This record gives sequence, structure tokens and C-alpha cells, in this order.
Amino acid sequence: MKNKGDSPYDALEKIFHEPNRLSIMSALCAADNGLSFGQLKEECSLTDGNLSRHLKVLEKADAIQVEKAFVDSKPRTTVRLSKNGITRFEEYLSALNEVLKKAKDSMPARKRSGATLPLGKTATA
Amino acid sequence: MKNKGDSPYDALEKIFHEPNRLSIMSALCAADNGLSFGQLKEECSLTDGNLSRHLKVLEKADAIQVEKAFVDSKPRTTVRLSKNGITRFEEYLSALNEVLKKAKDSMPARKRSGATLPLGKTATA
Repeated sequence: MKNKGDSPYDALEKIFHEPNRLSIMSALCAADNGLSFGQLKEECSLTDGNLSRHLKVLEKADAIQVEKAFVDSKPRTTVRLSKNGITRFEEYLSALNEVLKKAKDSMPARKRSGATLPLGKTATA
Repeated sequence: MKNKGDSPYDALEKIFHEPNRLSIMSALCAADNGLSFGQLKEECSLTDGNLSRHLKVLEKADAIQVEKAFVDSKPRTTVRLSKNGITRFEEYLSALNEVLKKAKDSMPARKRSGATLPLGKTATA
């Protein structure tokens, strides 16, 4: 049995691996000034309840900062990546890149059996 | 709200996204003639119980074929990808590739704030 940590799979930090949280983190990466709750909801195609739940998990893990303020007498929630969140998300993406590379590299052997679709095509089912 | 299916995150088939199952599928991809239970266990650094559990999930989803036979009077379990499993795993990898690309592409804006590590470096914590 290999040691834990030998494998890139061990480095896939669970908190970011869930597809909706991956989507949230990715959207926040692109937004230097953060995103409002409504923008994130739209960007990630999530319901209020789902987005709230994921934000709580990410905030508790110190990956994001959630700021509530009144703007023109209306409450506004702004979500930003924390510095810690950026660093850890980049590490997660590096690990994901390695895992993907490993899986792709293992495909050529399989290819010779002629049983597969071309890899690299976009999934458009 | 966007339609379901617009986003590459929706295409991340849950069954393959779990890191240990990703590891199992990737190992099986590289093995034209399948792998024994012991080889998979070693390759993926899993316990008997964990490997059994993940194989049951993958078999039930028709992603793999599990064959039990006696070789030299000893029981041997051989695990192979099914044709369906190969196709779906390739679609999963394509979706993952798209998600990763999207996340990486969103990094440059963030970079300008000077708060990050270089992306693309291997996670070596």
C-alpha cells in the first residue's frame, strides 16, 4: 500500500471538488471585486438555498469572505475569495490538472482496442 | 437562471467524480486486460472494504465488469472497464478538462492583485 500523499487523488481537496462549489470558486476567481449573491446565483445556476448552503461550507473553511452591507437602503451580500482560498484553490487546480493528465495518458493503451470515442472532443450529449 | 446542461459542471458525472473512483477508472483505462482486485488495491491505495464498495457502485452503473474465476484453484477477481464505462469516462474527462480550463482562464484577472502563487506549478505541499 502506498503512503497517503503519494497520489494526486489525495490532493483533491474535498471542499472544492463538489461540482457546484468548483463552479462557485471558479466564478469568484474571475471577479477581483467579488460577486453579489444574485450574480453568483445566476453565474452558477443555483437556487438560493443551494447557494447559501455551499457558501456556508466555503466560509467556514476560510476559503471565502462574505460581507453583508446596506447599499441604497437595501441589503447586499458580497462574496470574495480569501487569500487562503485562492492559494488552496490553485493547489486544488494543480492536483486536478495532474489527475486529468494521468487519466488522459492512460487512454492510448485503451485506444488500440478501437472501442472508444476520440478524447478531447467536447461532451455535447 | 441558465438551463441545466449549459454548464460543464453539470456534465461532471457524479459517479466518476469521487476521487477514489476517478483513481480506479484511470487505473483501469491503462489496463487493456483488466486488473485483479489486488492490483487495483495497490494501484489506488485503497483498503479491501473501500475498493469493494467503489467497485459495487461502478458495476451497478454498468461502468465496469467484474469477473470471478478460479485460477490454479485460487479465486481471482478481474475488473475491466465496460464499453459503456469507457465512453462515459471519456465524456467525463472532456467535461473535467473544460471545467479546469475555465477555472485557469479566470485566474489572470486575479493575478493582477498579486495575491497568488503561480498556477501550473505542481502541488507539492
